[in-house]
Formats: sequence, C-alpha cells, structure tokens
Amino acid sequence: MIRVGIVGGTGYTGVELLRLLAPRDEVEVVTVTSRAAAGRRVDAEFPSLRGACELAFVPPEEAPLSDCDVVFFATPNGTAMQQAPALLDAGVRVVDVSADFRLRDAGEWAHWYGMEHACPERLAEVAYGLPEVHREAIAAAQLVANPGCYPTAVLLGLLPLVEAGIVDPRRLIASAVSGASGAGRRERADLLLAESSDSTRAYAAAGHRHQPEIRQGLDLAAGVPVGLTFVPHLVPQVRGIHATLFAELNTDVDVQSLFERRYADEPFVDVLPPGSHPQTRSVRGANTCRLAVHRPDSDAARVVVLAVIDNLVKGAAGQAIQNMNLMCGLPETRGLSCIGVLP
Amino acid sequence: MIRVGIVGGTGYTGVELLRLLAPRDEVEVVTVTSRAAAGRRVDAEFPSLRGACELAFVPPEEAPLSDCDVVFFATPNGTAMQQAPALLDAGVRVVDVSADFRLRDAGEWAHWYGMEHACPERLAEVAYGLPEVHREAIAAAQLVANPGCYPTAVLLGLLPLVEAGIVDPRRLIASAVSGASGAGRRERADLLLAESSDSTRAYAAAGHRHQPEIRQGLDLAAGVPVGLTFVPHLVPQVRGIHATLFAELNTDVDVQSLFERRYADEPFVDVLPPGSHPQTRSVRGANTCRLAVHRPDSDAARVVVLAVIDNLVKGAAGQAIQNMNLMCGLPETRGLSCIGVLP
Amino acid sequence: MIRVGIVGGTGYTGVELLRLLAPRDEVEVVTVTSRAAAGRRVDAEFPSLRGACELAFVPPEEAPLSDCDVVFFATPNGTAMQQAPALLDAGVRVVDVSADFRLRDAGEWAHWYGMEHACPERLAEVAYGLPEVHREAIAAAQLVANPGCYPTAVLLGLLPLVEAGIVDPRRLIASAVSGASGAGRRERADLLLAESSDSTRAYAAAGHRHQPEIRQGLDLAAGVPVGLTFVPHLVPQVRGIHATLFAELNTDVDVQSLFERRYADEPFVDVLPPGSHPQTRSVRGANTCRLAVHRPDSDAARVVVLAVIDNLVKGAAGQAIQNMNLMCGLPETRGLSCIGVLP
Amino acid sequence: MIRVGIVGGTGYTGVELLRLLAPRDEVEVVTVTSRAAAGRRVDAEFPSLRGACELAFVPPEEAPLSDCDVVFFATPNGTAMQQAPALLDAGVRVVDVSADFRLRDAGEWAHWYGMEHACPERLAEVAYGLPEVHREAIAAAQLVANPGCYPTAVLLGLLPLVEAGIVDPRRLIASAVSGASGAGRRERADLLLAESSDSTRAYAAAGHRHQPEIRQGLDLAAGVPVGLTFVPHLVPQVRGIHATLFAELNTDVDVQSLFERRYADEPFVDVLPPGSHPQTRSVRGANTCRLAVHRPDSDAARVVVLAVIDNLVKGAAGQAIQNMNLMCGLPETRGLSCIGVLP
Repeated sequence: MIRVGIVGGTGYTGVELLRLLAPRDEVEVVTVTSRAAAGRRVDAEFPSLRGACELAFVPPEEAPLSDCDVVFFATPNGTAMQQAPALLDAGVRVVDVSADFRLRDAGEWAHWYGMEHACPERLAEVAYGLPEVHREAIAAAQLVANPGCYPTAVLLGLLPLVEAGIVDPRRLIASAVSGASGAGRRERADLLLAESSDSTRAYAAAGHRHQPEIRQGLDLAAGVPVGLTFVPHLVPQVRGIHATLFAELNTDVDVQSLFERRYADEPFVDVLPPGSHPQTRSVRGANTCRLAVHRPDSDAARVVVLAVIDNLVKGAAGQAIQNMNLMCGLPETRGLSCIGVLP
Repeated sequence: MIRVGIVGGTGYTGVELLRLLAPRDEVEVVTVTSRAAAGRRVDAEFPSLRGACELAFVPPEEAPLSDCDVVFFATPNGTAMQQAPALLDAGVRVVDVSADFRLRDAGEWAHWYGMEHACPERLAEVAYGLPEVHREAIAAAQLVANPGCYPTAVLLGLLPLVEAGIVDPRRLIASAVSGASGAGRRERADLLLAESSDSTRAYAAAGHRHQPEIRQGLDLAAGVPVGLTFVPHLVPQVRGIHATLFAELNTDVDVQSLFERRYADEPFVDVLPPGSHPQTRSVRGANTCRLAVHRPDSDAARVVVLAVIDNLVKGAAGQAIQNMNLMCGLPETRGLSCIGVLP
Repeated sequence: MIRVGIVGGTGYTGVELLRLLAPRDEVEVVTVTSRAAAGRRVDAEFPSLRGACELAFVPPEEAPLSDCDVVFFATPNGTAMQQAPALLDAGVRVVDVSADFRLRDAGEWAHWYGMEHACPERLAEVAYGLPEVHREAIAAAQLVANPGCYPTAVLLGLLPLVEAGIVDPRRLIASAVSGASGAGRRERADLLLAESSDSTRAYAAAGHRHQPEIRQGLDLAAGVPVGLTFVPHLVPQVRGIHATLFAELNTDVDVQSLFERRYADEPFVDVLPPGSHPQTRSVRGANTCRLAVHRPDSDAARVVVLAVIDNLVKGAAGQAIQNMNLMCGLPETRGLSCIGVLP
Repeated sequence: MIRVGIVGGTGYTGVELLRLLAPRDEVEVVTVTSRAAAGRRVDAEFPSLRGACELAFVPPEEAPLSDCDVVFFATPNGTAMQQAPALLDAGVRVVDVSADFRLRDAGEWAHWYGMEHACPERLAEVAYGLPEVHREAIAAAQLVANPGCYPTAVLLGLLPLVEAGIVDPRRLIASAVSGASGAGRRERADLLLAESSDSTRAYAAAGHRHQPEIRQGLDLAAGVPVGLTFVPHLVPQVRGIHATLFAELNTDVDVQSLFERRYADEPFVDVLPPGSHPQTRSVRGANTCRLAVHRPDSDAARVVVLAVIDNLVKGAAGQAIQNMNLMCGLPETRGLSCIGVLP
C-alpha cells in the first residue's frame, strides 16, 4: 500500500488527484491539507467525492506528511520550496505540481515568480516530470517537478521536430488556449462565468511564466538556445488546452512518420492520422495528449502541429500520478486508464 | 466473460456504453452496429475511444447479436420492439435503452410514440429497469426496459413521498432541466451551439412522452392514479438533469429522515444533508443520483425535492450497465465506480 | 436634457445602464460613482464602452448627484436607503435598482435583508416600478423601487391569472432559472466559469428574498394573501431568466385570450401564440418579457405559464430606464427599442 | 427612404441584418427571400424580431428585388454570382455577404470553392468591402464583396505592419478562433452544443478558403506576394473572432504609435492602450474591431497583434451595412452605434 499525502487540497489539482486516486486499491490517501478549510470534510467542499473520500482537511502542520510514501504539492507557487526539503530529508518522495522546481536556474525562477528561491541547492536533483523525455530520471528521483499545463502540450508537440533538428530553432511559435480551470480556483471577477463565458481573450502576450519553462525543455532538446514566442488565451470552457504550434522546416521530411515513430511506445501520446484535428473534448478527464501534424498548402516550409490535453489530467494531476507510478515502481499506466468523457 | 452487443452505436448512449464497458475485464464488447456508419471504425467516429476499442461498426444484420450474452439497444424508438423478440427467443438478455418497452399499456405507448407497438405480447414480461424499485424483477428478467432520463430523476425524487402516502397524489409537479445531450445526436438547428448556448427554454410544456412513464411509476407506488404535471427544459450544458419536484404534505413528518432511510442501502442514490442543493456537475460522468429535501418557510405543507443525475449515465448507459450487472449475477456496482468529473 | 447620475457603477446594472443611456441624445450621464474604482476611467473597467463614455468613476461624496434630474442606485442592498433621502429632499428623482424600497413592510424587509431599514418613513411614498401594474403611480412618483429580476418575470406571468381570480391563490408555484449575471459581479468561487459552467443547481430552495417581493405583488392583485412557493436556480448562461409558473384553475376559461387582452397595449410584454415556448435568447439585450401559456393534457385544472426576460434589461437597467422615462414625461419606450441579440 | 432586399434570410447574417436595419427610419426592408421558409413569417423563424418585422419570407423569384435600392446577398456561396448580374443591370446596388466576389482571380476562386465562377467578367468592377482600405472605391461601386469574418480581423490586424513595410512579408502567421455562429446555421452534428461546447479544435489547418482572401489583401498592401500561414479554430462561444497574429519586424519602430496613427480616423477600429488584451465580449453585437499590439520580451524582432470582432457584425452584417451607408452616401456610422453587450 502506497501512503499518499496531498498538500493544498482545496484547488482543482487537489480534487482531481482525489478523483483519480480514490478508486485505487494499492494507494491510500492518508491526509489532505488546507489551512483555510481545516476541519471541513473534503466531500463537503467537493460533493463529487461523497462516498469516495472520508477525510477532512487538516492544517499542514498537523498532517502526517513525513509518514507518507509520496506527497503531492498542489499548492500555490512558493509553498513547496519551503516544505519539501524536510520531507525529502525524511525520505518521502515528492511530486510538486506547482512551479517551484520547474526551472533549473534559480535566478530565472526568481525573475518570473517574483520571489527568491528558498532552496536553490535542491534544483540539481530535480527530475522534470515529463515521462516522454525523462522517464528514467523520474523513476530514480526523489523530487519531481511536474510540468506546467501549457509546457506539457507545447513540448510534446514541438519536441519531435526539435529533437530531429529539422526546424529553424529560432522561429518557434506557440499559440495556445486554455479552459478556465487552468487559472486555478481564484476568486477573480474576470474568471466569473458572467465575464468569461461566450468570450475569448489572450493574456500575458508579452511574456508568460510558462515561456521559460517551455524554452528550457526545447533548449535541451535542440542543444542550442531556441527562439520561442508563446501566447496563451482563455476560452470559455472548463477544461482543455489546445496548442497550435508553428515551425519552419529546414529539410523535407515526412513529419507524420516522424511523430508516429517518436511516440510509438508512449502510452499517453496519441498521434492522429494525417488530416486530423484533435478536439479537447476527446481527452476530457483522460491522461492522453493527442497530436496532429499538418503541412499547409500555402507554404512549403511550414509545419503546423496541433496538441490537446486535459489541463487537469495530463497537464497536472494525471501526469503527477504517472510520475508517482514511475517513482514507486508501479506500471506507469496504473489508475490512468480513464477514457475521455464525450460528449 | 460476458459477451456484449450494442445495437445503434453512433449515438451518445452508444459511446457512453463503450466508455464504461471498455475498461472492464470480465466484459467483452463483441459487436457494435450501425447501418449509416457501417465499415467505419468506432474510434474514428468517437476519437475519445482511440486505444480502447478496435471495433468497426457493422450493419445490424451482419452482427453476431444472437451469440451475445447481453444486447443493449441504443437505438431510436421503434427499433428494439422489432428486433428484440428474436434475440430473446435465442436466449439473449436484452436491455432496451430506448423507450419501446417502458409503458405497460401498448395503447398508451402507441398514443405517445405515434406507431403501433410491434410486440405487445412481450410487455408483460418486461422488468422496468429502476433497480431502486424493481431490483429482484430485473435480476430475474430477460428483457429490461431502461428508464428514461427524466423518469429516473423524477421517480427517485418523488417515490419516498408517494410510497409513504404522505403527499397529496393529485398535486405532484416536476419542473426539470436537461443538457443538450438529452436530445440525442440529432442534427437540428435548435440544438446547435449557436442557438442553444446562453439560452434556456421549456419544451413540450403541454405534454411530454416521459410524463406517462413517470406517472406509471408513481401510480404503482401510490396504489391510486396520481396527478402529475411535468415540464422539461433545455439548458445550455452538455450533460445533466436537474429535477425540481413539488408536493403537498398531508401530514407532518421528517422528510429528511424518510429519504435517508429509503435510500440507506442504495449504492447509487445519495441523500444530501439538510439545506443542500445538489449540482449536476457533481454527478458528471458518474452513476449517482443526488437528492436534497427542502421545506420552504413560506408554506407549511410544501415539500421541495431536488434531484440530479447525469442523463447519459444514471439516466441511460450507466443504469443500463447496472441492470446488466443484476441480470448477469455480477455485483451491482461493478464498473460503475467513476467519480464525477469536477470541475 | 435630462442629467443622470449613477451610484455604484462597477456592477452589471451600472454598465447596462450606460450601454442603454450612452447613445441617447436627450439624456446625459453626468456622473458615475464608485468608491473602489474612484479615479479609474469607466471604459477601462468596461472596454465595451470605449468611445461611448468619457467619464471616470468618482467617490460618491464628490459626485454632483444633487444636481442631477434622475439618480439610479445600482448599489448593493443597504446603500440607497442611506443616501436617497437627501437626494429626494433636494428634488432629485430616484430609481433604486437595489432592493431597499421594494417591500412595503419595514419589518419584513429587515427580516429578509438582515438589517434595520434606514428610512421606513419613506416607504409609503414609493412607487413599485412595474409599469404594467403601477404606470400612473410611477409617473407621479419621486422615488421608484425597481423590481427584482425574478419578481418581474414571475409577476408578469402570474398577474393575469391572479387579477382575474381564476386560480387557487394558495397554490402558486414558481420554478425559475437565472444566468450567472443575476448573482452580480461577486468574486465567489461558485460563480467561476470553472464551477458554474456545464452545471445547474437550485439555491435558496427553502426561502429566497424575492419570494416576499413577489408575494406582496400577488397579494395586492388577489386581494387576499396568496400561497407561493418559489425556487430559483442557476444555469450556465450569462443573461436571462426563465420562469415556469404553475397554477390551478378554478374555472374553465380561455387563458390565452386572457393574457392577450391583459397585455394588448403593453409595449414590452409579448404574449406568444398558443403552443409556443419562449427562449431567453430571444430577449437577450432587449427590454421585452415574452410569455406563453399552456394547458397540460394531463391535468384539466393545471395552467403553466412560461416567462422570459433579460435579467439585466427588463429585470434591471432597462426597466429602470422605462421608469425614468415615465417619471420624466418621456415616451415610455424611448431608448429601449433594442432587438434581442440572436444568435 | 432606402429600399432594401435581403436574399437568403434564414441564416445568421440575415437575422443580424434585420436586427440592425429594423430600427432605422431612413431604411425599409421590403423583402426577405427564402425558398425553404417561403410563406413563413420572419418573426416565427426568429422570435427576437417579433414587433420589429412584419414580413414573411418569399421565394426569390417572387421578390421585388429589382425595385430595391440595395440588395444584400446572405446566401450560401454560389448563389450571388448567379443572381447579382441581373440586379446590377437593373441598377440595383448589391452587397454580397457571401464569398462569390471576394477573389479577383476567377481561377483561384474556382479552386477554393469547387465550382466555376458564373460571371468572371464582373470581378473587375467589384469593390472589396473593407472600408478601412477601400472606402472611396466602395462609395463609387455598384457591387461590393463583403469581406469574410476572418479576413476582416486578420487584415485589420496585419495591414499597418505590411503597409509600412516593416515586417518580413514571407513569415506572417495568423492563428484565429471563431464562435460557432461563424459556421453558419448548418445542421451538422459537430456543431451541436453537445459536441462543440466545452471543447476547442482547429479545422482546415492545411488550407482554409479565407487564406487566399487574406493573402490577396496583404499582397496588395505589400506590393509583393506574402507568405501567410492561417489556422482557424472553433471555440465554444456563439459569437466572436479572436485573431492572434505573428510577424517579424525588420526594423525597430514604435508599433503602438504606428497602429494608433493608421486608425486614428477610423470610427470602427479601436487601438487599445499598450499592454491590453481585447476580449471578444467587448464587441459582442457591435461593429467594432479592437486591436492590441505586443512586443514579447522573449524575442526582439517579434510583434504580436491581437484583433477581435463580432463575426456577425464587423465580420458580416454590420460591415455590410457600413458598406451600404457608403454606397448610398449616408454617414458611414449610421445605424451602427450599438455598444457591445457586456456581460
């Protein structure tokens, strides 16, 4: 039995971790923390969990986290870097679903997240939790930085091109949209249904925190610094990320075959047949990334990749569990066989 | 291994049956029929099933239905009554998710469905597939009529009151809303997102086919003919039924306790604490009916019951599988432990 | 030129008043107040108003409200009753779009709104701003209480029946749904798109503040105290109220004709042909209430009325302007000819 | 009085033309044609128009189109090119809101629209109805090709850059999303609310009909053939186009000022302040295009332009009326002062 703790259980990643973990036989969620909701039953906050979770939220300092085998941080940025070191020292495996350990460079992290990093000395031991790239490192790691939602979709879509060295690495463009759950459970007027329904808008068009995270992954794959423009958007849906990726080929290759080969053995990456357009609804609730590759008629050198994920599953809780499975020596797909809820 | 056939697999009930059945070990879906989509892969029609279903649609006459242990009819009304008798004669168990076998009176059926019933002689052997009322009959039946989506929600909400004889049976009112998937996969302009999004409307306010079905169930519980006004509405969401039920108490009882006792042993009916308001999203993708009971301050005799289900799960495919489990001697909850997808 | 002030301009009623008033030639909005947004341009808060409004929000104490001909209170409950008396004394006409002056009984108001009424002595002079009932009183009044959104829809739907004395006044039922804008611009998690999209729920099923307001209007029409059960719901759309109203006829009359006669001369009430089902989208952005009347087959005595309005127009800002027009001697329909935005 | 005819009045452009034209004093819509709905009242098809339009649909051959001053074609592609020549010969001004006259090259048109052009000899006299570029030609024209919805947004967003010659014309990228009304009133399963709600997908990623239309406009502005990749997407909203445009600067200029100067005198183009992100809801129902310009931190040469329009107003009916105003010598903004419906 794997004993699991969840730090910060009142957000969407928290409830999604519980949705996916509660039915499992070999996993027991033993504690879910929340300072604000301490004492309240988890299923009072999230009625979907009635009958599946008998826990109440506990304050983090009262939670038996160091007795857990795995602890997930589903906290706002800045918390995991404070609390994870003690757990690591106690031998606990940690999957941080926040952004604290995603960037290797503490200075760049401080620039984008507006605070000093609390434990830069730990960054060298972090595995970046994208199994399709770092599977072995994840399996060996005690601390995994779960990728951001946009980085997951964009990296899975661009990596085959960049790894193969067949596109101009200075001219990568990612235009991506996210459902409102991607903004987290923040009580902001602009995220109200009355304001964000029936409307689309970009945000952070001049620079978003996920850009350096994506770029770091692409740099590694390219072996040289890449140029990436990334523009995120909010669309009126609950879940789902759709990334539309543009690159310029520097050689004429069969990109469809390239993608199919790259992901042939990946259980959670599905390359669609030529001519396809993946829909976010096809992965709603599922841990799958679906990809399609297009060569526009209008420009011989252009390749367009379309990538969809559920931002709360492959983009957060599902991938975190995939990482937990790897870290614990379980089959990687265990507990992640949910089929997309469609319609 | 239970061999399953699905007749009419291109609608929303079809894909939902496959979503729920595909991951199961002891069930094998051996054939899915469709005349219109014959030859097409099921996962080309429903990309969410990629990796989970390798079948192609076959024309019904070529499908090995009589070799199945269980056949689900997910067809438009009027088909199952033509095809089920031969399968029953061949010893196949049949769960009809269409309306063909729901009314005991063939004449009333003909009135509401606009055609003569093709096998009225079979109606006497039908079990009405609401396990919370007819569990034993279902387990013993070869032919089960799966309840309509509205009838499931309205009956589960009103039955405790009517069975106990504590409300005026002549004055029952059900005002219910459904998401657009309840209308089926029909290519109608009024069901386009551009026409039904950001809008609510009633329909069939003077008489809907589910009214006689609900009334039949209530008559049986009351032992007398009841008076029921039922008004359905379309609201701009994909899944979910919310029924708001009004009755007049003829005695002063603790209705909260009554409901809790009535459903204490039911795995798929969840009576919420006093003061609760169930949300359809709490059951999205789950086979659960959530209920809440209110006594408005403004009227001593009035009781208001709120009931929510996912119309495609407890209101269709999930309940059909619950019935299959009962008919096949499996644990009733097998394969139905999905937790609601929230948010 | 009519000089208009708006108190509390950062909510949805505020921006809707500006949308409707800005294009008018004979009206000038001279001040819009907000304490929180003081100094900020109105069109920075609401970009839809760019090019149509050059004002900045001013703190209420600095606003030239007493120089206005008409002041609208678009404030949270409890503000207008503090500030209106001084304006009234200064000769300003006041339309209160909040709830402060809607109930005639200060004690009942205090019960439902949780605070003592600040100027109960003013309640006798208030005109209830439903022109279809109180047109002459409104025209003569200096202080108008603009009806709530639900009361507008429910009263317009039930009044013809109650005024005619043809229904059992003890058994009136209103089941109504509202879009999320009806909850106002409140930063609450349950109103986020991620939580309220693709979901329906009731709220305040045991008692909502609009119930006594509706009952007061029905009592007046009936001449006796009525019994009314009112249950509101939140549906996943931005605008729109749909009320489904149930009553028991005590005589057999042609209710369709009754409704058509009752509203024959009303510019903003549209009785649909028999068999119709009004959609909220047909009145999106318009000051119209659309009604349809049904006699269910299943119950000879039952009548069902369907009523739709845009909660921000006929349910708030539009009706407020209709009242302003009456108070100022302008044609009642001036500036209110917007056609519903469909699709 | 300007007498107007609308050919093909049962689609969304038809009802939007009526919404905008019905309230006008100097315009009379004298006939609305539809073969399928002939004999049916227009306001039975579109209840939002009740009280604003007393017409019934007439078959096109019975409609007094040649007696009109202006005829709008709101038809599927392929109709206007058959019927417009006779009207032009009769002296009628024609605004074609379909695609028949948008491309100057009949061969290219045939390639993209899958049929031969019926009157290639008329193409030379067509004015492309983007007033911000072709105002004088439109005023002088008898036949105006109303731009497509995507081309309107993309051209207004890219033209300042291309006209100024400051970007690499071979590397223009447009990633754009549209609400479902952009697909027209087509009864297709993939456009049902149940299938397109809560989901995003690209379509025609390898080549969309609007690409050559946009490219034609950019070629003209650039004076050289441009390279443009255009990927459209469907997002779950009713109205609205959001275009995200990427270009590479070949010189360092103040693009914000450039845009402000370019559109300083344009009544329907609104350049937002630096750092802004326009939302489609800010233009819902309005004839406005809102633009914002960004220079991403991550790439010195990159410029990102964000453009929003209501696809049915500035992207169709509103721009068509703007063109009619110009053709008829009326003030260009007449009847187009609607403020966006927000929330």
